[in-house]
Amino acid sequence: MFRVPSRPPGALYAIGMGCVLALILVAGLAFAGDKARFTADGALIRPSNYREWIFLSSGLGMTYGPNAPASGAPLRFDNVFVNPSSYQAFRRTGRWPDGTVLVLEVRESQSRGSINERGHYQTSIAAIEANVKDSRRFPNGGWAFFDLTPRGEDSPKAVSAVPPGNNCEKCHSTNGAVDNTFVQFYPELIPFAQKFGTYKPGATAPEAQH
Amino acid sequence: MFRVPSRPPGALYAIGMGCVLALILVAGLAFAGDKARFTADGALIRPSNYREWIFLSSGLGMTYGPNAPASGAPLRFDNVFVNPSSYQAFRRTGRWPDGTVLVLEVRESQSRGSINERGHYQTSIAAIEANVKDSRRFPNGGWAFFDLTPRGEDSPKAVSAVPPGNNCEKCHSTNGAVDNTFVQFYPELIPFAQKFGTYKPGATAPEAQH
Repeated sequence: MFRVPSRPPGALYAIGMGCVLALILVAGLAFAGDKARFTADGALIRPSNYREWIFLSSGLGMTYGPNAPASGAPLRFDNVFVNPSSYQAFRRTGRWPDGTVLVLEVRESQSRGSINERGHYQTSIAAIEANVKDSRRFPNGGWAFFDLTPRGEDSPKAVSAVPPGNNCEKCHSTNGAVDNTFVQFYPELIPFAQKFGTYKPGATAPEAQH
Repeated sequence: MFRVPSRPPGALYAIGMGCVLALILVAGLAFAGDKARFTADGALIRPSNYREWIFLSSGLGMTYGPNAPASGAPLRFDNVFVNPSSYQAFRRTGRWPDGTVLVLEVRESQSRGSINERGHYQTSIAAIEANVKDSRRFPNGGWAFFDLTPRGEDSPKAVSAVPPGNNCEKCHSTNGAVDNTFVQFYPELIPFAQKFGTYKPGATAPEAQH
């Protein structure tokens, strides 16, 4: 046991206050430190630990556009992660708060065994993209896309947004089930969007766009 | 600002101690509260929040045995999650500590668009299994398997281990790249196993076992 110097009631009060201060600090770090961070000139600072965020879902062969594999090459997987505080906010409200970062990680696939075996598993990273919500920075729709694909030693620590009017934005704003995001592919989130009335009626898987 | 009752040095000391106590409490909850928990008679208490754990990887069409889809039915996805404290331990040591829970979530898939579209995405849960490490409870190899597949209102809150000598165990102990686990399919963990020398030489994807 430890000895409290003097005047136990005052000391206990101070210990209690210390506990409260520490808990506020920890809670603040845990629930706000995962939102989008930008440099002074508006570039997105690369989230280094997105693999420890919340996994939303994965698909195989859903990749199109510039990240699609070469003709005849194996299909690619898409893994989607979101920062934990925004995931919790979505479960509470059916909406993405400002600062939300959805990371799309595109991975190569391999098949195992003989030519008849249909199984595919994930291997190396082919591309990383982020879809970031910030109503003030991105007034036209509230979202912007960033290409975070690693480029070895030259990988920049911060990345500027893909200019507005790009194909990602067009497809997401037209087809996303909830506010520019493809919640129709995230089975754990669909019930929350439906509960809070934010799921666009009739939203389904869009036609492939090659 | 708040007023500290008297004797500022003692009160500050107490506040500091309060901070330390609170941080130890929070750290304890955050880093130990995610390990396997058992009932008095040794059943695994269902981890309710495994979807907020660390995602290791996903595969399509890797499912065999009792969870394989019926002939002609769409392929199934496998998502693998691990409790966060064990993930961090693996990155520090290349080993799984006691209390590790790997959850295999098997999901149905759908293809989108026309018959020529090869993309697959995830839908409802088909099965959930856990592979749990506890050297004292499971002296023969240190691991046991649990079937956590939800069964509606009848889903038990705790589940007994699949009896030793089952097919999961046989395949994992023979083919797992690290200590009974298929680290060869978890690309983010392979470098840590190699760094700490725990990756079995020559471990690759096993042949499919139907």
